[in-house]
Amino acid sequence: MLITPGPLLAKINSPDDVKKLDQAQLVQLCDELRHFIIDNVSVYGGHFGASLGVVELTAALHYVFNTPNDQLVWDVGHQAYGHKILTGRKNVFHTNRFYGGISGFPKRSESIYDAFGVGHSSTSVSAALGMAVASQCLNQEDKHHIAVIGDGALTGGIAFEGLNHAGVSNANLLIILNDNCMSIDPNVGALKDYLTDITTSKTYNKLKDEVWNLLGKLSSFGKNAQEIVSKIENGIKSTLLSQSNFFESLNLRYFGPVDGHDVNHLVSILNDLKSIKGPKILHCVTVKGKGYAPAESGNATTWHAPGTFDKITGEIHKKVYDKPQAPKYQDVFGHTLVELAKQNDKIVGITPAMPSGSSMNIMMKEMPDRAFDVGIAEQHAVTFSAGLATQGIIPFCNIYSSFMQRAYDQVVHDVCIQNLPVNFCLDRAGFAGADGPTHHGAYDIAYFRCVPNIIVSAPMNEQELRNLMYTASLPRAKTAFSIRYPRGQGVMPNWRTPFEEIEIGTGRVIREGEEVAILTIGHIGNYAVEVCERLEKKGISIGHYDMRFVKPLDEKLLHKIFSSYTKIITVEDGCIQGGFGSAVLEFMADHHYQAEVKRLGIPDRIVEHGEQSELHHECGFDAGHIEKAVHAMLELANKPA
Amino acid sequence: MLITPGPLLAKINSPDDVKKLDQAQLVQLCDELRHFIIDNVSVYGGHFGASLGVVELTAALHYVFNTPNDQLVWDVGHQAYGHKILTGRKNVFHTNRFYGGISGFPKRSESIYDAFGVGHSSTSVSAALGMAVASQCLNQEDKHHIAVIGDGALTGGIAFEGLNHAGVSNANLLIILNDNCMSIDPNVGALKDYLTDITTSKTYNKLKDEVWNLLGKLSSFGKNAQEIVSKIENGIKSTLLSQSNFFESLNLRYFGPVDGHDVNHLVSILNDLKSIKGPKILHCVTVKGKGYAPAESGNATTWHAPGTFDKITGEIHKKVYDKPQAPKYQDVFGHTLVELAKQNDKIVGITPAMPSGSSMNIMMKEMPDRAFDVGIAEQHAVTFSAGLATQGIIPFCNIYSSFMQRAYDQVVHDVCIQNLPVNFCLDRAGFAGADGPTHHGAYDIAYFRCVPNIIVSAPMNEQELRNLMYTASLPRAKTAFSIRYPRGQGVMPNWRTPFEEIEIGTGRVIREGEEVAILTIGHIGNYAVEVCERLEKKGISIGHYDMRFVKPLDEKLLHKIFSSYTKIITVEDGCIQGGFGSAVLEFMADHHYQAEVKRLGIPDRIVEHGEQSELHHECGFDAGHIEKAVHAMLELANKPA
Repeated sequence: MLITPGPLLAKINSPDDVKKLDQAQLVQLCDELRHFIIDNVSVYGGHFGASLGVVELTAALHYVFNTPNDQLVWDVGHQAYGHKILTGRKNVFHTNRFYGGISGFPKRSESIYDAFGVGHSSTSVSAALGMAVASQCLNQEDKHHIAVIGDGALTGGIAFEGLNHAGVSNANLLIILNDNCMSIDPNVGALKDYLTDITTSKTYNKLKDEVWNLLGKLSSFGKNAQEIVSKIENGIKSTLLSQSNFFESLNLRYFGPVDGHDVNHLVSILNDLKSIKGPKILHCVTVKGKGYAPAESGNATTWHAPGTFDKITGEIHKKVYDKPQAPKYQDVFGHTLVELAKQNDKIVGITPAMPSGSSMNIMMKEMPDRAFDVGIAEQHAVTFSAGLATQGIIPFCNIYSSFMQRAYDQVVHDVCIQNLPVNFCLDRAGFAGADGPTHHGAYDIAYFRCVPNIIVSAPMNEQELRNLMYTASLPRAKTAFSIRYPRGQGVMPNWRTPFEEIEIGTGRVIREGEEVAILTIGHIGNYAVEVCERLEKKGISIGHYDMRFVKPLDEKLLHKIFSSYTKIITVEDGCIQGGFGSAVLEFMADHHYQAEVKRLGIPDRIVEHGEQSELHHECGFDAGHIEKAVHAMLELANKPA
Repeated sequence: MLITPGPLLAKINSPDDVKKLDQAQLVQLCDELRHFIIDNVSVYGGHFGASLGVVELTAALHYVFNTPNDQLVWDVGHQAYGHKILTGRKNVFHTNRFYGGISGFPKRSESIYDAFGVGHSSTSVSAALGMAVASQCLNQEDKHHIAVIGDGALTGGIAFEGLNHAGVSNANLLIILNDNCMSIDPNVGALKDYLTDITTSKTYNKLKDEVWNLLGKLSSFGKNAQEIVSKIENGIKSTLLSQSNFFESLNLRYFGPVDGHDVNHLVSILNDLKSIKGPKILHCVTVKGKGYAPAESGNATTWHAPGTFDKITGEIHKKVYDKPQAPKYQDVFGHTLVELAKQNDKIVGITPAMPSGSSMNIMMKEMPDRAFDVGIAEQHAVTFSAGLATQGIIPFCNIYSSFMQRAYDQVVHDVCIQNLPVNFCLDRAGFAGADGPTHHGAYDIAYFRCVPNIIVSAPMNEQELRNLMYTASLPRAKTAFSIRYPRGQGVMPNWRTPFEEIEIGTGRVIREGEEVAILTIGHIGNYAVEVCERLEKKGISIGHYDMRFVKPLDEKLLHKIFSSYTKIITVEDGCIQGGFGSAVLEFMADHHYQAEVKRLGIPDRIVEHGEQSELHHECGFDAGHIEKAVHAMLELANKPA
């Protein structure tokens, strides 16, 4: 189904075309842009609320600034659909997030208008400041550098580090705070309360506009006039709104709050700000889902990325199944945590701004005092958990595999060096799917298993996940315990199995066989089950072992395997450099075994977005490729020398 | 040489003994504590200025609070010597930082008074908040939780994440801001300027004390009175000092600034603060090196950790050598970067608060516009570098190996996924020495080599470091480039060799031999040189290869090695799980070679502090152990079956 843009939008093939419009036409452009996004996402899926919230800002930025010479960095990038559509990707926009299609996030290799690739949050201030300082080094003083960052992303520590540096630079940096009180879930934290205070202060907002007019009139009179304006402004601000100084105390000139949906006002303000040198922040108040009633008035979390929906009724399409389906792993985590917490009052849950994504919201609803959403703050989430663990609390800290990269030092320094029993549940381990390379959880096995004092495990199904979580909650596992599992469904429609303790460092024999053994870790092992069944029908009997723990490895089982088989295939939904397969190679070398070992997993390159199954296929570790690997090994062996 | 404590200090064996003193005796206790620190550090070395700066705070905290039941977390921990001495470690304090002795940092396994292990900065707010929330979960509402954090550490992003969470909790948390305007080097950033503004505002400080008195009198009249007090206080503060609201905007009650060297005043304030529930911050102004004139008036960076010195004259002991010494690797980095930058005006340097530790200060002095100290902000340092690289600037971002853990996501997400040519120089790779486990650079080979689009290299000597840096600066190396090198000296007194480009992914043949080949990476290869020479004298000729690159591996050279040798020893100053040796195993498996491979390196456990050579010996990869490994391999081979 081809989505037809409105008449104005139809003619927009680059920001140059936007600039050619009369300012009076911008309202219509925004309207058409909004409809084009609604039409596309309702049919093809994708992120939704965030882009609708910045339609006016997007149009105004491209109208006022000279992109791509001026550098525009979108934080996180969920909100950049309008930007993509205005910068030459309108006609391929229906491929958004599909295998081989355009990325759901800004991406340097996709467009010269995408100044910086994003996906993880809170990087935009640092990146744009780097660009602004580069322009100083290169004597390009007239260039503008703009970071658009949400109030949620602003809580990430790196954003604060960037502000702290920006405030002492004289670089030409404009930070636009896109304040909608939301991350994917409602935003939390002290800063959010503070921003709400500013936004709702009527006295300030009334007088602010008068100051603004004064500023606009005076600032064109040169440097002295600008200084005077600045003093007046600061005087009024600090009298009327002492809180405004969060940003001013970091030496960033603060402007706003302004209505982020008044495109004409935005154009006029951005034009004014162009003439003000140095670091500055414009506070825009926006509404996530703006302009689409069901999203504006409904649950903003649901409308963050609703899947496909009926754009007229606002009804979100749900798949209907004939028979019971296996649950999502994240829901097994969420429900199991509550079950465990009911049995043990020392168990608590921690999520950095991913209540719905991790299903921690189940516990937050049932036990609000024992589940903590700490905001976009992975580092804090881990060290906070470590602090809890010192007092005998049993924390389950749930962080997506790729986001855990951001708390790596906290795992090493605050948890493992001190040997504190913090439990980590790594959702979205392996290929994340449509979110692409920034969200693939490719490296966690490698980056965790090199660190002492941490158990590294992965369940092959729902029952295993439950039992690993149960085991991690027991006093016996007195060390950090990580459990990785993928995005999406498991394999067991009847998943509420009774808890059984697992002996740490033991694998499972799925099937004994001859000559070739497949060693798998985690959910991906289900491909191997398929392969073994297929081969069985062909009269080939091979072994399959679900190793369950990368660390400690089940050495007893491995001795048995290496004594029985001469050909080993390892399969993991993780990087093959330094991963699970390498751990097996280390075991083999340390114990003087000599076997043929073929490692399957994520190759040493950036893998783009697509369905998980498409990516497994591309990277050679879906069932078909595993079967091929078995045949190749057998043929090689049977070849005459 | 035994250091004798003063008469009061002699009787202090735990904080209970401190509490038994009359408050009037605290000044003398502080005096004796200060002298004990000066006596010890002047003779045995260690960190200095930071601990002198918090002598009064340390005494006051242990006088007022009920440690270890109340939880006291020192950020970074350089400043905790006084704390160690008052909490039962006076008599072993001369073993501080020596092999087998006590740690230079707070450490949970060393004392129940060390509530949280530290070393890296900015973790204390998160950790103490975790403890405070744990107390709420456990219904221990009367427990106090104190984080002492410096103004430098406050710039680290995780500290901000912690403040943002603390501000919306009602946990019993007292944050003490130890404001001395210093990190190891002078502190930088907008927040520092802001704190200085507060501290120097006379109007505010005068009236503040009056408010304080009012507060003290009123707050005992119950909840309503406290609210009134709070309003009065805020009113005065926002009128007189709009900037104070940085903390208040995060909903943290702000008190101060107070003189951190008036122990009686501190005792009275801390007693007042005990009765105020919820999160709050006390701003203490201190002087690094307080009470020791040469440190107070001299260069604070020098006196951060001066080595041993003459306590009377203040003269720092310097070793005198008969013949020219090899330079420190860090100085080779510092001088070489300036040489390269003089030849190429696109080269810049970035350090997160380590100008003197990394020798980036050489460039900061010679080219102040092209070297950036961004504060304690490793994440920002990396993404800022990525932003610079997008514009064609050539950044050399220098971060200690263990601190790079804190910017891991930024390396993966902002640099490698986008394939941006940022150069990383990892100082303190391998064992850091006396700083111990928090500072050992054990994991970088493993955590970098699993990521695509990054070159992972290590020089065996100064010339190699220069040539790797030169190569990294050339346009040909269009990808991220990491160069790791250890703390301390190299091996080449005449190190200013002309630049030569190195072909990326090529190793060096140091010596051809028979039967056994030693493959090394980095400086540690010099042990192998020693071993080969010793064995040569015994008539044993083995091979030695300096692989130089872990990624990409020199496959041509490896094919040659695996075709010629059946016994391989790999040596690295890094973790053996997933490290360089594992990369060699992967090559071997992928290319169907079968050799005996022994991997030497940092074992899978936390290694404590000590001289680097002591730790290499302990972990079995000094020259003696490498030689033993060769003999063991040869004997095994020659044994009759």
